[in-house]
Amino acid sequence: MTRTTRISVLTEYNKPLQIRDINIPDLLPGQILVKITAAGVCGSDVHMHQGKDPRLSLPMCLGHEGVGQIVQINGEKKTALGEKLKEGDSIIWNRGVLCGKCYYCVVSHQPSLCINRWAYGIHRSVNIPPHLNGCYAEHLILDEKTDIFLIDDRDPAVYVPASCSGATAAHAFQYARPKMKMGDSILIQGPGSLGIFLIAYAKASGAGHIIVTGGTQSRLEMCRDFGATVLINRHDNSPQQMKEIIMELTNGRGVDVAIEASGNLDAITEGIPLVRTGGTYITAGFGEPAGSVGFPWFENIIRKNLNLQGVWVSDTRHVLEAFRIVQANFKLFSKMITHRFRLDDATAALDSVASREAVKAVLVND
Amino acid sequence: MTRTTRISVLTEYNKPLQIRDINIPDLLPGQILVKITAAGVCGSDVHMHQGKDPRLSLPMCLGHEGVGQIVQINGEKKTALGEKLKEGDSIIWNRGVLCGKCYYCVVSHQPSLCINRWAYGIHRSVNIPPHLNGCYAEHLILDEKTDIFLIDDRDPAVYVPASCSGATAAHAFQYARPKMKMGDSILIQGPGSLGIFLIAYAKASGAGHIIVTGGTQSRLEMCRDFGATVLINRHDNSPQQMKEIIMELTNGRGVDVAIEASGNLDAITEGIPLVRTGGTYITAGFGEPAGSVGFPWFENIIRKNLNLQGVWVSDTRHVLEAFRIVQANFKLFSKMITHRFRLDDATAALDSVASREAVKAVLVND
Amino acid sequence: MTRTTRISVLTEYNKPLQIRDINIPDLLPGQILVKITAAGVCGSDVHMHQGKDPRLSLPMCLGHEGVGQIVQINGEKKTALGEKLKEGDSIIWNRGVLCGKCYYCVVSHQPSLCINRWAYGIHRSVNIPPHLNGCYAEHLILDEKTDIFLIDDRDPAVYVPASCSGATAAHAFQYARPKMKMGDSILIQGPGSLGIFLIAYAKASGAGHIIVTGGTQSRLEMCRDFGATVLINRHDNSPQQMKEIIMELTNGRGVDVAIEASGNLDAITEGIPLVRTGGTYITAGFGEPAGSVGFPWFENIIRKNLNLQGVWVSDTRHVLEAFRIVQANFKLFSKMITHRFRLDDATAALDSVASREAVKAVLVND
Amino acid sequence: MTRTTRISVLTEYNKPLQIRDINIPDLLPGQILVKITAAGVCGSDVHMHQGKDPRLSLPMCLGHEGVGQIVQINGEKKTALGEKLKEGDSIIWNRGVLCGKCYYCVVSHQPSLCINRWAYGIHRSVNIPPHLNGCYAEHLILDEKTDIFLIDDRDPAVYVPASCSGATAAHAFQYARPKMKMGDSILIQGPGSLGIFLIAYAKASGAGHIIVTGGTQSRLEMCRDFGATVLINRHDNSPQQMKEIIMELTNGRGVDVAIEASGNLDAITEGIPLVRTGGTYITAGFGEPAGSVGFPWFENIIRKNLNLQGVWVSDTRHVLEAFRIVQANFKLFSKMITHRFRLDDATAALDSVASREAVKAVLVND
Repeated sequence: MTRTTRISVLTEYNKPLQIRDINIPDLLPGQILVKITAAGVCGSDVHMHQGKDPRLSLPMCLGHEGVGQIVQINGEKKTALGEKLKEGDSIIWNRGVLCGKCYYCVVSHQPSLCINRWAYGIHRSVNIPPHLNGCYAEHLILDEKTDIFLIDDRDPAVYVPASCSGATAAHAFQYARPKMKMGDSILIQGPGSLGIFLIAYAKASGAGHIIVTGGTQSRLEMCRDFGATVLINRHDNSPQQMKEIIMELTNGRGVDVAIEASGNLDAITEGIPLVRTGGTYITAGFGEPAGSVGFPWFENIIRKNLNLQGVWVSDTRHVLEAFRIVQANFKLFSKMITHRFRLDDATAALDSVASREAVKAVLVND
Repeated sequence: MTRTTRISVLTEYNKPLQIRDINIPDLLPGQILVKITAAGVCGSDVHMHQGKDPRLSLPMCLGHEGVGQIVQINGEKKTALGEKLKEGDSIIWNRGVLCGKCYYCVVSHQPSLCINRWAYGIHRSVNIPPHLNGCYAEHLILDEKTDIFLIDDRDPAVYVPASCSGATAAHAFQYARPKMKMGDSILIQGPGSLGIFLIAYAKASGAGHIIVTGGTQSRLEMCRDFGATVLINRHDNSPQQMKEIIMELTNGRGVDVAIEASGNLDAITEGIPLVRTGGTYITAGFGEPAGSVGFPWFENIIRKNLNLQGVWVSDTRHVLEAFRIVQANFKLFSKMITHRFRLDDATAALDSVASREAVKAVLVND
Repeated sequence: MTRTTRISVLTEYNKPLQIRDINIPDLLPGQILVKITAAGVCGSDVHMHQGKDPRLSLPMCLGHEGVGQIVQINGEKKTALGEKLKEGDSIIWNRGVLCGKCYYCVVSHQPSLCINRWAYGIHRSVNIPPHLNGCYAEHLILDEKTDIFLIDDRDPAVYVPASCSGATAAHAFQYARPKMKMGDSILIQGPGSLGIFLIAYAKASGAGHIIVTGGTQSRLEMCRDFGATVLINRHDNSPQQMKEIIMELTNGRGVDVAIEASGNLDAITEGIPLVRTGGTYITAGFGEPAGSVGFPWFENIIRKNLNLQGVWVSDTRHVLEAFRIVQANFKLFSKMITHRFRLDDATAALDSVASREAVKAVLVND
Repeated sequence: MTRTTRISVLTEYNKPLQIRDINIPDLLPGQILVKITAAGVCGSDVHMHQGKDPRLSLPMCLGHEGVGQIVQINGEKKTALGEKLKEGDSIIWNRGVLCGKCYYCVVSHQPSLCINRWAYGIHRSVNIPPHLNGCYAEHLILDEKTDIFLIDDRDPAVYVPASCSGATAAHAFQYARPKMKMGDSILIQGPGSLGIFLIAYAKASGAGHIIVTGGTQSRLEMCRDFGATVLINRHDNSPQQMKEIIMELTNGRGVDVAIEASGNLDAITEGIPLVRTGGTYITAGFGEPAGSVGFPWFENIIRKNLNLQGVWVSDTRHVLEAFRIVQANFKLFSKMITHRFRLDDATAALDSVASREAVKAVLVND
């Protein structure tokens, strides 16, 4: 008996996505058929829809963020924590699939930098078997190399952001945490979903002042719920005023750690001077080329003895950390899901993200 | 005009302490005269009272844990955070005074191991100028090299434990934190004040399961308030049963980190097998020689690829972390102060600690 | 056309190995057929031969250490550094094959602790396809998941120890290096091949005093060539005398780092007191259960603020470090190969290791 | 009896230094009178002579790099390693004197960032007691807080660079070393005395390719003696050609670590693209403001997951590492001292540095 499912397909940039019926192929060994219960609409999906991401080849089923229920497994499979998987289990997974053989996988142990990494909903067109390669769909087929975790049966939409921005935030925070003493001050630039996860990690790491800068007041207000102690609207405060506020809070030294989560180049030149001498600046908010930024090298880097860290995507341990923090603060994180759409309305979902109306938009299937 | 104050003096081991009136000497440059508002009665004070600590020479004014108010400063002084100090300020300080010149101070940067370190209430007899060298007193004179922090004007007794067990716990936790992912499991052995601080740090570091083992049920119950998620009474559970409980919680692997805070050698042999392969075991609960402990080396250390860390006292950064966590959870930490005594009743205070009746006993002055 | 090869097989414990002719099977995708040019005889092979290793099931082709030349590749394969492999290449590989899916592989990033790790010559009997599973043979088939590095065409026997003791030493030294300042003192206990690699790493890490303790004078002498600056024969010096020598060299503090590479429990109780307060003790010399060891906990661990690290096997990055140091010091490392045997004389080779006559014995094929 | 000594004084910027006879004051407790046997002429001395360093106030005795012999000690003093000091000892010291009380000294344990740090020959005019505050002199008085090490009686000029560029290089290398595996590739930009020490540390840390870029061929040649394996003259190779050379050496990935030691802003934009994804870029070559530098943020920092570290001066442990490496390679380091002058010719010495004729110029007293 042939099984079919429905996927949403991007066939032409900037045009509405189209629903397509598609046969579900037989599973190869190690593959898992998943019913997508919720799929996230990421800011980078908007760029892909606009044709700005060179990794894509059409026709494409978008959606790298997702959670779902196992329909079928070909063979024995375990989670990355060692639990045996079975039909009906609710799961989340690392959106990136790694080769396990390259320099980054086996020598330098920086798996997020795997040179053969590919992600669902980004790198594999609908034309490539097993065709069910994106989360804007009713079903997805997980590759044999995918790392999986069990979640519980609460609202799947709330877990979705752990798959991408939550994991990337965990990666960024991994560089912050060993540098922070209990009660240290942290600045987070950008109150989007990346920034909100960073606030949650900062709070769950005993930070003292958790200062958030951003331009959208409603998002800043949401940050307060997650643990931000000081909110600074960039439209109401000049860089000099921001500096005064922060120096006042930190005995004139500046924050111990700042994390850029805005994707805005101004954040770099504004943010580094707010870090104390001997502190750490982490930058994680850019998903694609955004131009050059310049600043005085001696004053910002040398004399400050600054530690600066760039962050690219995430690996499996970061997905674990992300869904754990959602799990431990479920009600709180449910506030982040401001918009929900049906699969058929995926184009409208993209619009809600493009307009910055949504903090997080999610496609849900029954 | 000669000023006098009252101190409690140990003149003979195992005998009651005696109140003595004593002149307050003129301050040397850099010294600070402090009115002691609250002084902690530490488990090691009991050992000193019993004559078991070779560092002591009588007559001794005990008390290495204290907080107070500045009465007089000779010269300009700042806190370790850079705030200018003035009369009337409420302060806490590093109970240990370091030389700033030895290998540990200037080469290896492990200041808690300073070979010339001395502590108020332990190393300097009443006979040594400036004579006001212990916290079981109405006044103390802080040495020019003492590192100081401002506290607020809330109940000083609640800050007292930050000075010793809180700081030592911060030191122990410094080794745990870089090893822990968000949501990792931790075992804390010993529900005394050291263990309670460790629970608080674990919670403030996003730990998942926070498992506490101990023998006193009332103390275990208090641990729950501080964030312990699993309590195991050693009297009701064999080592094998403890292991089963913990393996059940940790996918059969064991905890990621365990910290010994009990001063009991059995904890070592019980605890290491509860740590996962590749995990970390930290031992901080011993203040004096306690005999030998043996265990199978291959199974416990080699095959487990165990990281094991001993912890000796603390340094100034740990005092900062300790009072910050008290400050951020003041109401909670006030529960730890189960017993309060007047300076004249210091001997009774020692008894309350010796009998393990008190979680924390504090001497308070008006 | 059926191809055959010769392997040396352990069919009964404590009996001579037997040469067996065996068909070379067709390669599965990703497999590589290797002509073994040199295979190492490890101390643990002696234990296996004696029936003391529970991981074995007979008939077994021993040999987990090997280097060879590629005869045939099924598919495209690259080294872990990214070079394309081709027939005729001289290679070395990680003797352990990892699952790439378990907690240790993808979450904690401690791949040497992979719960599904298996090693050539240890875990897979001759009965298990592809049958060519050990290095005491003319040919070996490398599993698709094996991590490989190119070596050059110099004497292959010299590279062999990099595969096991060199890699394990690199793993042990990974914990030492971040703790060592330029010119720091290190103690290495045990002048076998593990110890000799550790000396080489210590020298290549700018160590000052490199002190080696052991009981075999000829091996101690060889250590001098590799960079040891002080040799102490345990038969000629009591523990107290060893301590005096070392304290004299280290301003009375003790060595900054000590590494146990002897597999002797006495080394533990002798060695920890030789480490300075705040120093590091690493133990890597045990391959199997060896009983219990006891010592005073307060004095050795707590008061010393000791960092103690157990070491289990190694991963791919360690193999890279090991063959790199051999490559950079090839002439020196050629001295380590004291005994060479033909495949037919593998039993004699085992004897030369059992008697401690050989520093390193290698089986060579033309 | 009044003792006098001779010092070289900067009384007017850009004018010749003047020799002045000056009384040697009585020593305060803890002070040490040192006969300067050799004093280094640093590139920053040239800037000071030109009036470009705002830290100076005239009249100034320049010279922050020096070694000497103890003439007199007021009180008991020990080295930072614990050896007792006595008259006649040859010594080197940390040129910076730290407060031991500020946030950086006692909380964050980053003593090189001490907010009250001052250096001999830079911060204290001749007018400030004890007046003997710089090394361009026959005698210097060491402050009570100065950290000191014993050296041997070989040519003191060879030890001089350990005091400044050697120590700063040790500080820079402290960030490199934990990131480097045995045999990893490193790029050092700038073949001056800072770069030469970095090469020596790289070699003493088991680096593989040690690539040096610079514009002065004679200095590049000297680098080869210290361990550089690849020399690239920037005048003969475009940035693109440099990139090709380096990618060829590193399997197309780039170096694992690069360290800027040139004080040239072009080095930043040239160097970061030569670092592999996931690698480390350290910048240590700037002693004063030098303008802004800009580069593409996504490509250079984010996508590369780059770790970037600024380096400011050094602390006592770095002086130890620096003189240890000189001590272990004395003959080699003697090559670095290309120019020697008498105290009376200090102005000529400054000229030899200003013209980049000297790799290292030293003032020597008999």
